[in-house]
Amino acid sequence: MRQDKILNIPAIRRMPTYLHKLLKMQAEGRVRVSSTELAEYMHIELIVVRKDISLTGISGQRRVGYDIKELIRYIKNYLGWEDVLQAALIGAGSLGTALLGYDDFEHYGFFINHVFDCDPQKTGKEIYGRRVYHIDEMAERFAGNMPEIAVICVSNTAAQSVADKLVALGVKYIWNFANVSLKVPAGVVVQREVIAGGLAMLTVKRKQDKMSED
Amino acid sequence: MRQDKILNIPAIRRMPTYLHKLLKMQAEGRVRVSSTELAEYMHIELIVVRKDISLTGISGQRRVGYDIKELIRYIKNYLGWEDVLQAALIGAGSLGTALLGYDDFEHYGFFINHVFDCDPQKTGKEIYGRRVYHIDEMAERFAGNMPEIAVICVSNTAAQSVADKLVALGVKYIWNFANVSLKVPAGVVVQREVIAGGLAMLTVKRKQDKMSED
Repeated sequence: MRQDKILNIPAIRRMPTYLHKLLKMQAEGRVRVSSTELAEYMHIELIVVRKDISLTGISGQRRVGYDIKELIRYIKNYLGWEDVLQAALIGAGSLGTALLGYDDFEHYGFFINHVFDCDPQKTGKEIYGRRVYHIDEMAERFAGNMPEIAVICVSNTAAQSVADKLVALGVKYIWNFANVSLKVPAGVVVQREVIAGGLAMLTVKRKQDKMSED
Repeated sequence: MRQDKILNIPAIRRMPTYLHKLLKMQAEGRVRVSSTELAEYMHIELIVVRKDISLTGISGQRRVGYDIKELIRYIKNYLGWEDVLQAALIGAGSLGTALLGYDDFEHYGFFINHVFDCDPQKTGKEIYGRRVYHIDEMAERFAGNMPEIAVICVSNTAAQSVADKLVALGVKYIWNFANVSLKVPAGVVVQREVIAGGLAMLTVKRKQDKMSED
């Protein structure tokens, strides 16, 4: 268990939001950005922004701000997003469909190029230009085109058996949206996505508001 | 800006995962749980579990573990989930539909009892038993039945105008799934949900693995 990772969780989670903003600025022709402007955008303190950015290893220039293009490169490098990451999505229900339609992924170099489901209503169809294959076709589809990451969007009850299949095929990185703690062998990394985590953040703030009102 | 909140972000985000597990244990007839068992489930260190749980104010009993029912009560109290929270969902696309189908919300006392969209293909229909109303009907639907929280699942381009409407109607807590930084007046709290934050966590771990392999 590596404590250094645990300490930086909020900063790591914020990185895509910086990146989103920086890519937008770059598209608008902007060249430099100050940490003050980023702090306002992120709704966090200046010192937190500076700490976040220093994690990427870029050297800050107090007066002139950061070079946007360079900062994008440092953030992508920090996250391991400098090369294209290919992914398989298992489960083409509403959540899986939402992920397929998430525009920012392609700007981040994250491509879901395999989609699987076991529902005959879905297999053979296309979602956002990606054809849905049956789960039994995974081995065949992965041959010579192994995804770096698998995204599990199946039901809680099906998630473990899907994870077992993925691990057997050699997948090492799993982004799990099912609300279960997956059992995987050592060397396989699972990132469990708990959607209610954000709700907890919001309601804790709400509770603090209510208490300060009393 | 309150630093105490910022420091506890990972712990707050983990609370629903503890709660999910504890509610499941309770349903199975379990009475007590040790922090060791929770640490194994959460894939985190024992000391982190003990710190997380101590945030709720419950007094730990080293030898006998925690009373599950009591721990559930403390976590719900810590999160402000002891009473039912009513919510409005704006945007009944694939992501909104996924949230409506998220079973755990009702165990957490979080009820989405208003659903709005502006697409005539969706208005008038039912999704998981909730009727979709047109966005223009918000004021009318909220009369006497004001939601505590609004969940924004519309496109990035529509999100700010939806937020403006919600704020004008008196909504103070917004859970924003659109990838934009919403401008809201002081006193309104926005929790921005960045789905790519979890991907960042996974790829940073992947990068560290690759570096230690070299």
